Amino acid sequence: MQNNKIITIGRQFGSGGFEIGKQLASELGYEFYDKEILVHAAEQSGIHIDLLKKNDEKRTSSLLYALATGGGYYGAHVTGAENTIGTQLYIAQVNAIKSLASKGNCVMVGRCADYFLEGLCDLTTVFVSASDRFRIERITRERGVSEKEAADMMKKTDRSRASFYNSTTGRKWGEAKYYDLCLSSSKLGVDGAVKLIRTFLDYKLSL
Amino acid sequence: MQNNKIITIGRQFGSGGFEIGKQLASELGYEFYDKEILVHAAEQSGIHIDLLKKNDEKRTSSLLYALATGGGYYGAHVTGAENTIGTQLYIAQVNAIKSLASKGNCVMVGRCADYFLEGLCDLTTVFVSASDRFRIERITRERGVSEKEAADMMKKTDRSRASFYNSTTGRKWGEAKYYDLCLSSSKLGVDGAVKLIRTFLDYKLSL
Repeated sequence: MQNNKIITIGRQFGSGGFEIGKQLASELGYEFYDKEILVHAAEQSGIHIDLLKKNDEKRTSSLLYALATGGGYYGAHVTGAENTIGTQLYIAQVNAIKSLASKGNCVMVGRCADYFLEGLCDLTTVFVSASDRFRIERITRERGVSEKEAADMMKKTDRSRASFYNSTTGRKWGEAKYYDLCLSSSKLGVDGAVKLIRTFLDYKLSL
Repeated sequence: MQNNKIITIGRQFGSGGFEIGKQLASELGYEFYDKEILVHAAEQSGIHIDLLKKNDEKRTSSLLYALATGGGYYGAHVTGAENTIGTQLYIAQVNAIKSLASKGNCVMVGRCADYFLEGLCDLTTVFVSASDRFRIERITRERGVSEKEAADMMKKTDRSRASFYNSTTGRKWGEAKYYDLCLSSSKLGVDGAVKLIRTFLDYKLSL
């Protein structure tokens, strides 16, 4: 997998990171993985997809809640104490990310893929942010919610993603020094963002 | 000044932000301001240049130290309590940044210019980071110090810049969401970084 070109995209909620990644993958002829990472993790591990989805990009401690309230989720591999479930979910995702990355060039969205793939492939790590106004407008339009609801979703999801990323990696989600390239999609739009990432790839040094 | 195109560059110590800014300004035919901001602040305010340099990109509280140990620094405008000195230095720099920005298109390095110019001009905010290895190598080569000394300078200066930026702006230095574009110079080199910033400017939406 050392020569596989992998682009990871971290993103603020509502910033268009998904669309940017999808368009980038399509233009480059790369595979694209977002929720597909969970599906692959479920297939490989035997963990129920619903448990993976319920805890997607959430800090492991929230699994205590899943354990206390959930039922019928736990696959063959997931039994015993909370830690075991947390660990199993963690391992399942890491394995899925590495397994997908080994197949060939791809774009992966979220789920700490930047951290898990470091040193293993020809990696480019991107983070997409955008102004609150731009994001609230997008969330409102795409999800049919009020501005207040959009702002609440945005804050809650960003907090959750940051907590998941920080606790998993020991880094700080969205801090520039941990990424090769960070851009504001509200300043560029989806097309401009894709063009900028492609320019970065064109000029990236062979190290 | 509303139509003046200003590019601000925040940078980790040793990342080459200065060179990138200088080359960018030269290619675009823009003015370039780094330490020149301090010179302009001294000229405008009457504060001694040495006092401005000594406290350059340092948190205001360190002025207590300057006050306790310094002598002969204080210009006509700077008398009285520590707060007054801190405030005078702050005002002098803000005025210098705004005054230089009002003259025409330019590139400005550091000193919270991104924050002070927000909403006042056609602003593009950039942050340059780089791997520790890349930075230590550069600092060692350019300043003729040992690797250990370079690593110490790097940590100390970054801490000082972060503290100055965070206390001045209420934001977090180097957090992607506060900048339009963040890039790793160790992945691009100076030429690649300049090309990437120019691509950003080409695709930047008119908002």
